[in-house]
Amino acid sequence: MTNPAPEPAYVAVDWGTSSFRLWLIGKDGSIIAERRSGEGMTTAARTGFAAVLANHLAAVAAPEGLPVLVCGMAGAKQGWVEAGYIDTPAALADIPAAAVRIPGVAADIRILPGLAQRDAAAPDVMRGEETQLLGAAATLGDDDHLVCMPGTHSKWVRLSGGKVLGFSTFMTGELFEAIAKNTILSHAIAEAGAISGETPAFRAAVARMVANPALATSQLFSVRAGSLIAGLSPEDAKARLSGTLIGLEIAGALSLVAEGTPVSLVVSGALGALYSEALAAAGLSPSIIDADTAVRNGLAAGAKALWSL
Amino acid sequence: MTNPAPEPAYVAVDWGTSSFRLWLIGKDGSIIAERRSGEGMTTAARTGFAAVLANHLAAVAAPEGLPVLVCGMAGAKQGWVEAGYIDTPAALADIPAAAVRIPGVAADIRILPGLAQRDAAAPDVMRGEETQLLGAAATLGDDDHLVCMPGTHSKWVRLSGGKVLGFSTFMTGELFEAIAKNTILSHAIAEAGAISGETPAFRAAVARMVANPALATSQLFSVRAGSLIAGLSPEDAKARLSGTLIGLEIAGALSLVAEGTPVSLVVSGALGALYSEALAAAGLSPSIIDADTAVRNGLAAGAKALWSL
Repeated sequence: MTNPAPEPAYVAVDWGTSSFRLWLIGKDGSIIAERRSGEGMTTAARTGFAAVLANHLAAVAAPEGLPVLVCGMAGAKQGWVEAGYIDTPAALADIPAAAVRIPGVAADIRILPGLAQRDAAAPDVMRGEETQLLGAAATLGDDDHLVCMPGTHSKWVRLSGGKVLGFSTFMTGELFEAIAKNTILSHAIAEAGAISGETPAFRAAVARMVANPALATSQLFSVRAGSLIAGLSPEDAKARLSGTLIGLEIAGALSLVAEGTPVSLVVSGALGALYSEALAAAGLSPSIIDADTAVRNGLAAGAKALWSL
Repeated sequence: MTNPAPEPAYVAVDWGTSSFRLWLIGKDGSIIAERRSGEGMTTAARTGFAAVLANHLAAVAAPEGLPVLVCGMAGAKQGWVEAGYIDTPAALADIPAAAVRIPGVAADIRILPGLAQRDAAAPDVMRGEETQLLGAAATLGDDDHLVCMPGTHSKWVRLSGGKVLGFSTFMTGELFEAIAKNTILSHAIAEAGAISGETPAFRAAVARMVANPALATSQLFSVRAGSLIAGLSPEDAKARLSGTLIGLEIAGALSLVAEGTPVSLVVSGALGALYSEALAAAGLSPSIIDADTAVRNGLAAGAKALWSL
């Protein structure tokens, strides 16, 4: 005799710029079904958000009218319905209540807000990461914490007592792509494969940035010069570019917290190994939290707060 | 009665990546004729260096067999004839003797070498700027000096007693283009005109980088975030991008010299005003040397050393 299938309770959706992920969650909290696709905000803005969601709900046979909780770029101005921002300092527990309901549909579909830092010297925004933070809150506890969330736009968040005090977005991933493709460094790294964080050139580049971040754009040129006069291999050149940008990000984040503040890394996939090595090269030993689990836990916390599910 | 035309002594050529400049110089040191074109190394590598030079020599009616001294990228590996490098620490006075003669032609045509810094942590190269330094040497004197030479790849040179102790290339201009065109910041600055160094947003961005350069790539994202949540205008967004990159360069160069080292700015054209404002925002009062004059003086010093002209 097999266990009966759990009864569906709600649908959780992480709707990013270029990716869509949906989970059908049971009343016991289990994952009944999962969908992943490339229909992120950019695609859905053309094909229609409602239609994309309806297709995936049908694919997992979600019962009509099941509540849906969405986080991420679907709530941006260019998204489905603008879900606004909560301003920092922001209590993570306040996020669910600020969700915005999609108007004109029978089902209860809500999008969680992002966070905004309205600081003239360092204005900043996030959308999606706040839900990961909400999901990681129980693990992180109430102590002061620096949370690193790597990506195209890496976020470093200063947490204390369940509140986001402030955060900084570093354009690391996007700069890596723009520099690798559109500058003179492209010649030096053209033939390189994937970067390994274990490459000494990567770790050395991180350490140099932590020691003197002001030399960042000179270290970038050294990728070209090293290739010209020092026989720097394409692999080491690419590792040096990556290590310089990631090391600069680490140096910047550390400059905003007290020395010794515990660091956590919320990450999934290949970036996890790379950032673990980078943080080690900077002398840090972060605790690691899986980003996929964190976003699901955050949506679960939201669903519980909104619908007592 | 008019003065007789001065007798030609030599031809000076500044042959960069994308520009060609030639001066026919008289025995009294005066400029008899000048040519400027876009036939830099990139173009000449396709159409032929000898042919480009011959056309311009004919255009200024240079006498057959007049000696020609060239500096810049024409001496690169991808240039006309590779003119190699002098390694740092390098005495500026040693540059002319290391010029490489074009083989197989009757006329005495020589290309000046570049400088190379063979340092595993900060390998670096220059080609063309060493000739500007040679030309500025008399003005700069023998004291310790930090020389800023802005451009696509800005050079900051540490000089002492007529020697280049070391130098750093910052990819400022090239990064500005790559980031403005190929990242999410393009939306924020799309409609902006030319940057003025007098814009408060520019000066504030420079000052922030000098105060905390580690936050560079976060300050870059703030251009986007400021546009999203703080009404940052396209003009201020562009000024903030430029000020962040130039300020980071200044912070990096200052990190390598003793406080109070005199700073000189070797520059021509619009970049002069921009860098003057940036250096002022960083609390510096540089002496300014015209880059066009400096390269001509450097080629004159070379011609004098090589041919007693």
